[in-house]
Amino acid sequence: MTYKELYNLIKKKKSFLCVGLDTDKNKIPSFLLKEEDPVYAFNKAIIDATLPYSVAYKPNLAFYESMGTEGWISLEKTVKYLRSLNEPLFLIADAKRGDIGNTSAMYARTFLETMDFDAVTLSPYMGADTVTPFLSYQDKWVILLALTSNQSAADFQYFENKDGEKLYEQVIETSTEWADKNRIMYVVGATKAEALTDIRKIIPENFLLIPGVGAQGGSLQEVSKYGMNNHCGLLVNSSRGIIYASTGNDFAQAAAEKAKAIQEEMAELLDKFLP
Amino acid sequence: MTYKELYNLIKKKKSFLCVGLDTDKNKIPSFLLKEEDPVYAFNKAIIDATLPYSVAYKPNLAFYESMGTEGWISLEKTVKYLRSLNEPLFLIADAKRGDIGNTSAMYARTFLETMDFDAVTLSPYMGADTVTPFLSYQDKWVILLALTSNQSAADFQYFENKDGEKLYEQVIETSTEWADKNRIMYVVGATKAEALTDIRKIIPENFLLIPGVGAQGGSLQEVSKYGMNNHCGLLVNSSRGIIYASTGNDFAQAAAEKAKAIQEEMAELLDKFLP
Repeated sequence: MTYKELYNLIKKKKSFLCVGLDTDKNKIPSFLLKEEDPVYAFNKAIIDATLPYSVAYKPNLAFYESMGTEGWISLEKTVKYLRSLNEPLFLIADAKRGDIGNTSAMYARTFLETMDFDAVTLSPYMGADTVTPFLSYQDKWVILLALTSNQSAADFQYFENKDGEKLYEQVIETSTEWADKNRIMYVVGATKAEALTDIRKIIPENFLLIPGVGAQGGSLQEVSKYGMNNHCGLLVNSSRGIIYASTGNDFAQAAAEKAKAIQEEMAELLDKFLP
Repeated sequence: MTYKELYNLIKKKKSFLCVGLDTDKNKIPSFLLKEEDPVYAFNKAIIDATLPYSVAYKPNLAFYESMGTEGWISLEKTVKYLRSLNEPLFLIADAKRGDIGNTSAMYARTFLETMDFDAVTLSPYMGADTVTPFLSYQDKWVILLALTSNQSAADFQYFENKDGEKLYEQVIETSTEWADKNRIMYVVGATKAEALTDIRKIIPENFLLIPGVGAQGGSLQEVSKYGMNNHCGLLVNSSRGIIYASTGNDFAQAAAEKAKAIQEEMAELLDKFLP
């Protein structure tokens, strides 16, 4: 998906919601456990319920890998189902990978070719070698961790040079030399909404993937105020807040209601901040 | 495996060699492709051939994941085979993961419990949250990326604060507060042997996992000179140099010869540098 196609999708659906498919077998409604593939059954129901309100889906690979082979099968089926819907959707493999050249190339093939994701999240620690193998796939994206929303993000991301520049700013600056706004996005935690102003000075045009709205306590209003650009430039992720909105028989309906509420707020924010 | 058990294993085998199982289906001898599970057949032959000379094995997960479900099965079988040998071996899941609390906990369970690895490599970018879930498993280890051996390592790992301290040094220093030498090791690329002196000032006792000897150009002599401590404190990895020593029918024998040559050099170095 191109930058422009993503923007058009956001405008059409009046939504920049990404649904995080952090599906944990221990948390899904128990009646699903009798299904042949409970994780897939859950994902399929969540997708059907939230599809009118979201532009992106983001399975967090840790949840699938932790189930071994069975988990990979659920993941592959989920992606295949999303693609079978025959409508544009931005699919993110939340892998947080960070490896060098030859192994990065293997990961790129897995996620962008074999599984047909649009984007992969990557950790910047090992530098350009981690990212460049992913850039040879047309209309596919890299989403680089910059400022994450977890508590210990400050351990190293705030490490500061003599000019007062922080590591996460250096990561953003340096990586803009590897790819432009059409190929690279950044993860910026919603718990740091005020930092968005500074980040927008470095990268006015790039999309940002914002986790941490909802369960992790970020505010959609703040994020939009400080982070939105004239192509929206935001994908805001919600995982637990949507997919575990209810743990009963009505889980899908509850997820739809949550997603709808977020989408309606997003529609207002797009009206307010888009030119 | 405990610190002391690892040291005893190194003394007994006069080796601190880790064999990197970076198994690529496109690079293994073609006659293996008619096997039911070519990657596993290759690994098994390599393990049998190199077992007398090595103390550790390190599958790089990217190679397995890139084959999807099939790759995970090969990996699981490889680990099971290594454990069936009924002799002490230090098994490293080279995963380079870096995720937050709840997903880190899932990875920890996958690698340290479900698959019975001794250690997992982790990326430090997201801070303590990435590491702590792995520390609740007894006698299991975290191996944190500090200074990697790839070309673009300098992009961020050399990012320097006003006191001239580099990011990788900060990573090492900060993480020593999370766990002691019994639970945490560090990846330090062999291409940076001179940096080992400075690193040993910060962590005199911890084990270091050194990739990049061989194909990536590091010297075993240099690494031992600057990096060895009084419990050896080194695991030196060789992947391609051993497993692809020959691509013919004699691949296992060629791997054995390569591993033997490295082990013999290591025996001399242990004699020379150990108290």
